[in-house]
Amino acid sequence: MSSDTQHDTKDTVFIGKKPIMAYVTSALIQLANNPKVSIKARGLSIGRAVDVAQIIARRTDSSGYSIGQIKIGSEQLQSLDGRSRNVSTIEIEVTKNA
Amino acid sequence: MSSDTQHDTKDTVFIGKKPIMAYVTSALIQLANNPKVSIKARGLSIGRAVDVAQIIARRTDSSGYSIGQIKIGSEQLQSLDGRSRNVSTIEIEVTKNA
Repeated sequence: MSSDTQHDTKDTVFIGKKPIMAYVTSALIQLANNPKVSIKARGLSIGRAVDVAQIIARRTDSSGYSIGQIKIGSEQLQSLDGRSRNVSTIEIEVTKNA
Repeated sequence: MSSDTQHDTKDTVFIGKKPIMAYVTSALIQLANNPKVSIKARGLSIGRAVDVAQIIARRTDSSGYSIGQIKIGSEQLQSLDGRSRNVSTIEIEVTKNA
């Protein structure tokens, strides 16, 4: 995993600036070993997290995976000028069909 | 409602290119008359839909509204060169606390 992605823990994929298919591949690899994976993103990457989840769900709809629970929230981040501001977050669960 | 926003039906707010607070206000007005409102967006506006929902939920957390069901999906759109492509969509329900 390159440095720009927060280190992906066992069943989580953090969306950063890499091409979308890199995250699709990463999620599929984790789904091969885990019953579900959480796709997490914040700020401007939120739309890309939805894209990744949709690509997986669409391409494997016959037998593979489906969208589970979706949670949104916000985090306080310290911007460069020291002020803290709220950034929206999303967590999308992709699960293996039983 | 200006032309760039798909016409907001009674309990739905479509996120377009206007400032975020315009959609927050629009959703709050609809929540004054309806038990819930659906915030809908697609493509690059998905992150802004999450922002709108979070601003409402954060600013009214003591008594007001909370985030309900969240759905993601994709739509087929015809691009200018005639090819159809998939665009991700999100629908976030904001409900009045009972």
